[in-house]
Amino acid sequence: MEKTTVLYTGKAKQMWATDDPDILWVEYMDQATALNGKKKVQIDGKGTLNRQISSLLFEELNAQGFPTHYLKTLDDTTMLVKKCTMIPLEAVVRNFASGSFERKFKVEHLKPLVPAVHEFFYKSDALDDPFINNEQAIALGFADKETIDEIHAMSDRVNAYLKERFANIGIDLVDFKLEFGRLSDGTFVLADELSPDNMRLVDEATGNSLDKDVFRKDQGPLTPVYASVLKRLKESK
Amino acid sequence: MEKTTVLYTGKAKQMWATDDPDILWVEYMDQATALNGKKKVQIDGKGTLNRQISSLLFEELNAQGFPTHYLKTLDDTTMLVKKCTMIPLEAVVRNFASGSFERKFKVEHLKPLVPAVHEFFYKSDALDDPFINNEQAIALGFADKETIDEIHAMSDRVNAYLKERFANIGIDLVDFKLEFGRLSDGTFVLADELSPDNMRLVDEATGNSLDKDVFRKDQGPLTPVYASVLKRLKESK
Ligand SMILES: Nc1ncnc2c1ncn2[C@@H]1O[C@H](COP(=O)(O)OP(=O)(O)OP(=O)(O)O)[C@@H](O)[C@H]1O
Ligand SMILES: Nc1ncnc2c1ncn2[C@@H]1O[C@H](COP(=O)(O)OP(=O)(O)OP(=O)(O)O)[C@@H](O)[C@H]1O
Ligand SMILES: [Mg+2]
Ligand SMILES: [Mg+2]
Repeated sequence: MEKTTVLYTGKAKQMWATDDPDILWVEYMDQATALNGKKKVQIDGKGTLNRQISSLLFEELNAQGFPTHYLKTLDDTTMLVKKCTMIPLEAVVRNFASGSFERKFKVEHLKPLVPAVHEFFYKSDALDDPFINNEQAIALGFADKETIDEIHAMSDRVNAYLKERFANIGIDLVDFKLEFGRLSDGTFVLADELSPDNMRLVDEATGNSLDKDVFRKDQGPLTPVYASVLKRLKESK
Repeated sequence: MEKTTVLYTGKAKQMWATDDPDILWVEYMDQATALNGKKKVQIDGKGTLNRQISSLLFEELNAQGFPTHYLKTLDDTTMLVKKCTMIPLEAVVRNFASGSFERKFKVEHLKPLVPAVHEFFYKSDALDDPFINNEQAIALGFADKETIDEIHAMSDRVNAYLKERFANIGIDLVDFKLEFGRLSDGTFVLADELSPDNMRLVDEATGNSLDKDVFRKDQGPLTPVYASVLKRLKESK
């Protein structure tokens, strides 16, 4: 497998075409951004940590029979995935109030949300990723009703798996963002990444954030925190 | 029937208790506001026009078998309604893109939305009536799943009736806002008002706004416009 041309350079990953039109080469970069890209720094070692956590979780989901884009790991910062036509929605699941939800509704930090709250954000840099509801997404042609229902059901299943997985290592899964896509044959799959860049994790023992909030809120160096999450996941496999 | 004490003075109506604990006395005021109350003026004759349009439409909906709070008209600016425990959500239905929807998604003005888009806004002055999705409304305890579904279904039925009613007099129903409540015995009803303060109406012949956008956008005097809507509705009964 060879990488050929860069298809997309995002905020955290670089997506390359390969000699197989159905396979993408994903390089996890040593970069962190916050505030929709306004805050941006290089963090040595972040790429490989996110790649490792993502690989570990995708491998587990694949083993559990979840449909995902993940194929295999190539090296420290690189994985191969099935190429998708992405659904332009960020699917957020919240088990506890935090971030924009906490601010918008002025609710108590980490208030439990039962049942879990699902939210969509329309992936559009030009529009600043606006919060969007199901009917808006359908009327604007971003997804049809069946796809919305598929995302909802799959997000709930992923939430059930990950919540339990992290609970077993003393970590609360506060919220997370998923992205979904379709393979060339139409198969619906979980895509993108599964890392502390896209989840809020709270250590049950200390109450400390174990995710990108450490960077967003300048709570110290990020890589030791991500390394500790990886270690706890690995030790409990 | 006597009015006793003022329960609430809103931006457009004053709600009074009566000697019957299940009945409210609603006075439509000569006041117009925009920009969440930041723009506010007295407009003579507006109260009676909104009361008349509301009475006419609620009477038609009652006759059609819709469950509403409307009981009867007392005088130019006053109607009696069944007292509700209000559901703290504004239920918006959009047939064409306009207002905040058009701005948020930068779509063409009056782009048809098929199927109609439903939106909820949480009625909270302190939070500035934020846009909210179904799961958020449920998790925050504003309404349960069954109530959300009831609002959705009833909003669709009201939309079907009003769209046709206005189409028959050469007017496009662009969007509107409904409020719902429950009577003391739990009955779900359409409440609040049905007037051009809470709908966007566009004259098919001229393209002119026939609603509060005339006030929001300083397009001239409001009462002749509301009077023309009332006249067209009355003449086509
Ligand atoms: N299997 C896949 N096939 C095609 N595209 C994918 C796949 N998995 C993820 N992507 C897309 O690749 C990009 C990953 O790059 P990155 O996460 O760095 O983007 P980003 O900076 O977050 O920007 P964006 O706002 O586009 O997500 C995202 O746009 C994501 O939607
Ligand atoms: N049948 C009813 N029983 C009880 N309250 C009602 C009923 N119908 C409407 N209301 C409430 O009465 C108030 C009507 O006043 P008005 O429309 O002027 O309020 P407003 O200025 O729009 O403020 P708000 O933001 O509270 O709607 C609203 O709060 C509305 O929810
Ligand atoms: Mg991304
Ligand atoms: Mg009102």
